[in-house]
Amino acid sequence: MQSTMQDVPLTVTRILAHGAKVHGSAQVTTWTGEGEPQRRTFAAVGGRATQLAHALRALGVAEGEPVGTLMWNNGDHLEAYLAVPSMGAVLHTLNLRLPPEQLAYIVRHAADRVVIVSGSLLPLLAPLLPHLDCVEHVIVSGAGDTSVLDGLHPRVHRYEQLIAGHPADHYAWPAIDERQAAALCYTSGTTGDPKGVVYSHRSIYLHAMEVCNPASFGLTPAETCLPVVPMFHVNAWGLPHAAFMAGTSLLMPDRFLQPAPLAEMIESERPTVTAGVPTIWQGLLAELDAKPRDMTSLRTVVSGGSACPPALMKAFEERHGLNVVQAWGMTETSPLGSVAYPPAGVGPEEAWPYRVTQGRMPCSVEARLIGPGGEVLPWDGTSAGELEVRGPWIAGAYHGGAGSEPERPEDKFSPDGWLRTGDVGTITSDGFLTLTDRAKDVIKSGGEWISSVELENHLMAHPEVAEAAVVAVPDDKWGERPLAAVVLRDGSSVDYESLRAFLGERVARWQLPERWALIPAVPKTSVGKFDKKVLRRQYADGELVVTTLG
Amino acid sequence: MQSTMQDVPLTVTRILAHGAKVHGSAQVTTWTGEGEPQRRTFAAVGGRATQLAHALRALGVAEGEPVGTLMWNNGDHLEAYLAVPSMGAVLHTLNLRLPPEQLAYIVRHAADRVVIVSGSLLPLLAPLLPHLDCVEHVIVSGAGDTSVLDGLHPRVHRYEQLIAGHPADHYAWPAIDERQAAALCYTSGTTGDPKGVVYSHRSIYLHAMEVCNPASFGLTPAETCLPVVPMFHVNAWGLPHAAFMAGTSLLMPDRFLQPAPLAEMIESERPTVTAGVPTIWQGLLAELDAKPRDMTSLRTVVSGGSACPPALMKAFEERHGLNVVQAWGMTETSPLGSVAYPPAGVGPEEAWPYRVTQGRMPCSVEARLIGPGGEVLPWDGTSAGELEVRGPWIAGAYHGGAGSEPERPEDKFSPDGWLRTGDVGTITSDGFLTLTDRAKDVIKSGGEWISSVELENHLMAHPEVAEAAVVAVPDDKWGERPLAAVVLRDGSSVDYESLRAFLGERVARWQLPERWALIPAVPKTSVGKFDKKVLRRQYADGELVVTTLG
Repeated sequence: MQSTMQDVPLTVTRILAHGAKVHGSAQVTTWTGEGEPQRRTFAAVGGRATQLAHALRALGVAEGEPVGTLMWNNGDHLEAYLAVPSMGAVLHTLNLRLPPEQLAYIVRHAADRVVIVSGSLLPLLAPLLPHLDCVEHVIVSGAGDTSVLDGLHPRVHRYEQLIAGHPADHYAWPAIDERQAAALCYTSGTTGDPKGVVYSHRSIYLHAMEVCNPASFGLTPAETCLPVVPMFHVNAWGLPHAAFMAGTSLLMPDRFLQPAPLAEMIESERPTVTAGVPTIWQGLLAELDAKPRDMTSLRTVVSGGSACPPALMKAFEERHGLNVVQAWGMTETSPLGSVAYPPAGVGPEEAWPYRVTQGRMPCSVEARLIGPGGEVLPWDGTSAGELEVRGPWIAGAYHGGAGSEPERPEDKFSPDGWLRTGDVGTITSDGFLTLTDRAKDVIKSGGEWISSVELENHLMAHPEVAEAAVVAVPDDKWGERPLAAVVLRDGSSVDYESLRAFLGERVARWQLPERWALIPAVPKTSVGKFDKKVLRRQYADGELVVTTLG
Repeated sequence: MQSTMQDVPLTVTRILAHGAKVHGSAQVTTWTGEGEPQRRTFAAVGGRATQLAHALRALGVAEGEPVGTLMWNNGDHLEAYLAVPSMGAVLHTLNLRLPPEQLAYIVRHAADRVVIVSGSLLPLLAPLLPHLDCVEHVIVSGAGDTSVLDGLHPRVHRYEQLIAGHPADHYAWPAIDERQAAALCYTSGTTGDPKGVVYSHRSIYLHAMEVCNPASFGLTPAETCLPVVPMFHVNAWGLPHAAFMAGTSLLMPDRFLQPAPLAEMIESERPTVTAGVPTIWQGLLAELDAKPRDMTSLRTVVSGGSACPPALMKAFEERHGLNVVQAWGMTETSPLGSVAYPPAGVGPEEAWPYRVTQGRMPCSVEARLIGPGGEVLPWDGTSAGELEVRGPWIAGAYHGGAGSEPERPEDKFSPDGWLRTGDVGTITSDGFLTLTDRAKDVIKSGGEWISSVELENHLMAHPEVAEAAVVAVPDDKWGERPLAAVVLRDGSSVDYESLRAFLGERVARWQLPERWALIPAVPKTSVGKFDKKVLRRQYADGELVVTTLG
């Protein structure tokens, strides 16, 4: 028997048309730091995206070609998010926090011929351009002094001038195969060259549907979403496309990602849901502690990108009435992998053991745990293995570069096509994932595994500890042992013995670190994750002042 | 540039695996009329579905083969919903309210070899079987006297005995192409033979994702859903598959669809969301008016299948605090077409003009209005045309019967593949659809169109009118004119002149019916819709006592 359903592809083109028409009065508001924010309706965004498509086509942008964006979260970037995939080209979001040589690498690897850049980021782009022969056109969005580009080879355009005069009401959008490339994002991998993940129209569309789901972000026309997570970081976790699909108004922070302006924009624009990495929330918490603001519009603060310290979640709830929900994902998972809503019928206090996990996967994300010997482990809440995932918005390969086939490195993809996440953890019988560590960060001590993250979370729950990172260091007797690197709160003088005693009440004795160091701040990657590679190197190079307890 | 995403199909198999594992403790509760309801966890349902797949394979059920179900809403039917598509076969839900000859027609047209039947429905099936040579196996679910099948040709099995002994923990589920047939449902068309719509795994999966969306039903593990809409009626609007996907517990009414047991099961099992046709809610309202129950668990009552009279929605809200949300769809649309949530920032009183529309379409359902001359009409809230829709869960053809190609009748599908819904209406600039009539029911009076539905709604808002139907009748001068057929409330003696005066305050004078008739009840189709064909025939045959007002 044959299905009699229509064969209609899942495309960004459809998201663009739907949001601009059915939800034309929804708004994207871009924070400007001072004065009135910039406000555009979805109808206007749709019209301007259509103009942008005409303008890019006039520059010769072809189907399948990448268009780079080096931009903050704002209305223009949203237009590129919609226009570029819809015209059949590939949105390549450039992570402005990558080291310059990596940024140059990914522009060359993708072979970006056109780059749209926020005016405020011209000083970042200009010094790279002499190393970017592939770039022929630079389109400057917003204000910014273009004289830094004088004498460089690309042609320079102003975004507003470039799109002006093009029709806003029609474009011959090409027929799209839903498996066609739509967007490209490179991992901010801490080792080796960044790897490109090429999202398809299908994966973006399905992921956006899931982002709208109430077990994820719950986007409806009644909500306003503040994506603090940058649009150059895994498509801002899918929120721009999902919001346009759902008719959810967007509040865009542009470059104002510091705690004070974030608190101000939340108080004045009243978003209902927001998303970002723990480091951002840590900063916002300190800001609110120092100067309380009205945060009552926020029903949910989603935290992802790295594990959110439970102490941070509790502090937000107790001191500011904010509900922090933890989510897990990575560039290779689009990124929605799991969200930690407690199960049905569980009261506020009983909910904590669930809320501090990485949560449950949606139906479209299938998970398995692989043990040290390659065996599939049971979901019993205790068997720890590497998490592998499969699904329609999970990567199965990396971009091989212009004209090359995709690459499928063995350490990243299993022979049967699952993504090896590099995360180690457990899953309970009812599907709650707890990541205990990165496979590369877990401390292999005498044939047992010690989770660096667990030790960090306990340490960061200590009232005098601002931040803490635990890394494996070589040990003659045990192979590896944990080193605790601690950032104390201003004015604190707590000693290592007290911290170890505090830990000793919470983990097994054999897991307690012998080696301790005070550091001014935990080194972080370009997206705010703890950069343990740096700490390990500092230890190896003797740059840390280490005290060894007996 | 090639996408690097995994190519993972969207299948019912995945819904089965996910619900049974990640949401294994969610429950399906089947009402039993008296005594304790039958309760099964999703884990148990998953195990029993696996056993059922083994049992059906042992009966020789092959991939692509239909398996008929003539069943109420209950746990066994849910198992068939999951097992049959997952094993590659096609779930063919049989509408037990069809006239017997139509029921026999669809079993033969689909060539069902195996039929699962609720024991209480054996008296309905038995007399048909002599006309159903194709049926080789009858599987009886639940209690029921099988002696009515004695001497008939099919082999008879008891569901519990048939699945017992088969493994519950594994089955070699076949690899599924997401465009493969998964389920078959025939329209309850009031003219001609019923037409079969064959849903694919892809369409069911995408539709289930949308059903979970907060702008549709908003299913999460915290919800309990009561599908009053039968599982033989467009897959119970996708709720069983969506609930299993989301981990939403299900309350199944089995055959207890009368107002009193519905009120009882809501009061005692406390579902949070329910869905059914207006006729059911009309009955429940009368029941609650007579004997109030605790309905406070229900956050949303979704009404679809035919237009819900605004008076009914208001009565529920004012007298029982229940929020009735109108939705539109049809067998050919899976059925989720549109849902009438008001737009953002609209207060309770301002919301009514939106709530009485058919609502807005989700991103995956694209709509256009086609005028009398075939032209595409603007979305201006006034231009009325036939609604055509396109999308991944919209039918593009009908089942041609066993071994035949799908059929694509011109009056049902446009040359470019859109579904012609047969509904006439308007769409506002912000996407709110208002259906004013069926294309075949609209009254063509002197070159103008009069909406029969609008007149009915106004009449049913009159306090002494229980029901009213308006149909077109031939008129020498105007071509057609409206006839109002009215059911008065018990004890009412309101006269036609008063009713016409009441209408005259609400619609243009030229739309007022001249012809009036009192009837004991509005004739209804097997799924509870007004059957205007019957009324038109009764008028033509002189069976109505018609009064013509001057």
